[in-house]
Amino acid sequence: MSAEENNLIEILEVGHKVDVVKYIDYVSAPQAGAIATFSGTTRDMFEGKTVLELWYEAYVPMATRCLSSICTTARSTWDIHKIAVAHRLGPVPVGETSVFIAVSSVHRADGLDACKFLIDELKATVPIWKKEVYTNGEIWKENSEFMEKRLELAERRDSLVKKPVTEEHKRGCCGSKVRVEEDEA
Amino acid sequence: MSAEENNLIEILEVGHKVDVVKYIDYVSAPQAGAIATFSGTTRDMFEGKTVLELWYEAYVPMATRCLSSICTTARSTWDIHKIAVAHRLGPVPVGETSVFIAVSSVHRADGLDACKFLIDELKATVPIWKKEVYTNGEIWKENSEFMEKRLELAERRDSLVKKPVTEEHKRGCCGSKVRVEEDEA
Repeated sequence: MSAEENNLIEILEVGHKVDVVKYIDYVSAPQAGAIATFSGTTRDMFEGKTVLELWYEAYVPMATRCLSSICTTARSTWDIHKIAVAHRLGPVPVGETSVFIAVSSVHRADGLDACKFLIDELKATVPIWKKEVYTNGEIWKENSEFMEKRLELAERRDSLVKKPVTEEHKRGCCGSKVRVEEDEA
Repeated sequence: MSAEENNLIEILEVGHKVDVVKYIDYVSAPQAGAIATFSGTTRDMFEGKTVLELWYEAYVPMATRCLSSICTTARSTWDIHKIAVAHRLGPVPVGETSVFIAVSSVHRADGLDACKFLIDELKATVPIWKKEVYTNGEIWKENSEFMEKRLELAERRDSLVKKPVTEEHKRGCCGSKVRVEEDEA
């Protein structure tokens, strides 16, 4: 089986919950002694504001390609058996899972470290837009980590081409995901 | 709720499988945005030998006390909401889970780092004996990490009391778990 066949990447359309058992079963194997997972769930408070739900949007082929790329990077660093990554789109109510990652490996350090890397990279580089819906308004926004990563990449590029950092440079590998429509009072 | 009430520690008697969904549900909460988990499963090969099953034994009150202690240490280091730790006793066939840890937290770094710490400490300090059953024999043995940790502690103690390290020193906080009965050809 190729590495590609050992990755399961799913961007779930509106109304489809993340079935964590399905992804744990996918990565399970007799030769893997370890499974590390991470679930990101909608929490009820954010920066002192009461959250009703989060809402995610993505251009699916682009997000899938970015996720596949970070799986390849993880495999080049750690000895991994299988990887599952799922991200839900549309509304995700408080307490429900928006993103889930499962990694199996022979030894536990590989699975644990790769799982941490995958969620950090997903947050920093994969273009999935998030709308935070509060009791008193809503806001479409970048993940702050994504913005930091873009700026870092733009500055690195700038130092290579000897040109100043422009807004055009401050974009992800798959384009900009900035879209702010703040409706708050 | 006290920290103690936010830990679920279960040593499962022979014949009881680890119900991972139960432990994930236990740690889930509206205020927690992250859940990190680790499953240790019996793998089919160990150092080139074909494994049939692993067999675990423990003095339950002592193992529970040690697990509770490492949960307290984790809480003093990271901002954690809930912790679940389960360890199965008796035979664990290839592909099935012997140990499961789930940690919920507001921010993901706390949960991920605490989960890694908990499994590393469990392996290194909690007295749970393991028998490896191969196609050509079986062996009761220490986890190698447990042995290393004991030796390290014994040496540290030795440097304090100015006495040489003895076999008596090379024990866990809850006594020795060395019991080797190698039956191999």
